Amino acid sequence: MAVEKLVGYVSARKSRVMMLVILLRVLALFATIAATVVMALNKESHTFAVATIGNTPVKITITAKFQHTPANIMFVVANAVASLHSLLMLSLMCFVSQKYDFKGLRFIIVTALDMVTIAYLSGAATAVAFMGELARNGNSHARWNKVCDNFERYCDQGSGAMLASYIGILFFMLVNLVNIFEHGRFNPSKNPLSA
Amino acid sequence: MAVEKLVGYVSARKSRVMMLVILLRVLALFATIAATVVMALNKESHTFAVATIGNTPVKITITAKFQHTPANIMFVVANAVASLHSLLMLSLMCFVSQKYDFKGLRFIIVTALDMVTIAYLSGAATAVAFMGELARNGNSHARWNKVCDNFERYCDQGSGAMLASYIGILFFMLVNLVNIFEHGRFNPSKNPLSA
Repeated sequence: MAVEKLVGYVSARKSRVMMLVILLRVLALFATIAATVVMALNKESHTFAVATIGNTPVKITITAKFQHTPANIMFVVANAVASLHSLLMLSLMCFVSQKYDFKGLRFIIVTALDMVTIAYLSGAATAVAFMGELARNGNSHARWNKVCDNFERYCDQGSGAMLASYIGILFFMLVNLVNIFEHGRFNPSKNPLSA
Repeated sequence: MAVEKLVGYVSARKSRVMMLVILLRVLALFATIAATVVMALNKESHTFAVATIGNTPVKITITAKFQHTPANIMFVVANAVASLHSLLMLSLMCFVSQKYDFKGLRFIIVTALDMVTIAYLSGAATAVAFMGELARNGNSHARWNKVCDNFERYCDQGSGAMLASYIGILFFMLVNLVNIFEHGRFNPSKNPLSA
């Protein structure tokens, strides 16, 4: 009787934790999709007068696009892949039973993939952060001039994407911690000393 | 009798795993220390003739230092902090008994710290990678010229530090995976259904 109660408690807790993990994964998905879209749509054009011939000004139009910086391209790819990863994990949780698990391999593969996702998302977001810092402030030692004074909206939009990506990383970390904590807590099948 | 055998098997396996984790942590420590030192010592001077007055050439000496790029400063700090983290974890494993653990909090704190370390190391290394790419190839859209043609050794040394940091990240990931896998496998105290 006591064992049945305990089993009931464990399964109720398990489903609550599963709901929490699904919620966190959906939030991470939204954050990475937002980061991908905001960065992929980042484009700003400006027209500058460079000279005057007679009374006619000579103008050139310069367009700043996200593709112009390799770090931004990696950022878009990384956030898109992380979004696909979230979708895959969500469908795995919702449509594939927990029973299909070979010797705890499912847990360790999911954890490893989550960890790799955190690593490359963090890399992409931080690279964009430092490229943004360079674009805003320039670097006098390397004689790289700042460009954000002319393309302010472009830089702000890039910063927004970066922020969304960092929020996504936070949710990925929470998912991973909840998963790991709960796996260690309620996983009798993996434990050779369990009843 | 069977239970005693099982307990013996578990503790033998636990100590083998502990040795593996210590080995991986020491390797991670070496990698991050190497990355810190190689980057912190990165400095190259070049003398250029900029003009000739009469027969006397006018020369200027330009020095490239790692401090000139914010990404490099973050890289050195991140790898130094990761090295301290490894040292702390190693001393925790070697000198503080596994018994001092409040409701599995020790495991979750160590795992969370390892994950955060992976995230910021990956961020620092990737930021340096993209700054290096910019220094090598320049960016015609932003009119940022390449600088590595004049400071080749400086750029190569930075790349070496980056590589060491990525190797460190790999070891941190392995440590984390081994820790997580083993915790789920042999942790009867955390399991309400265990014997």
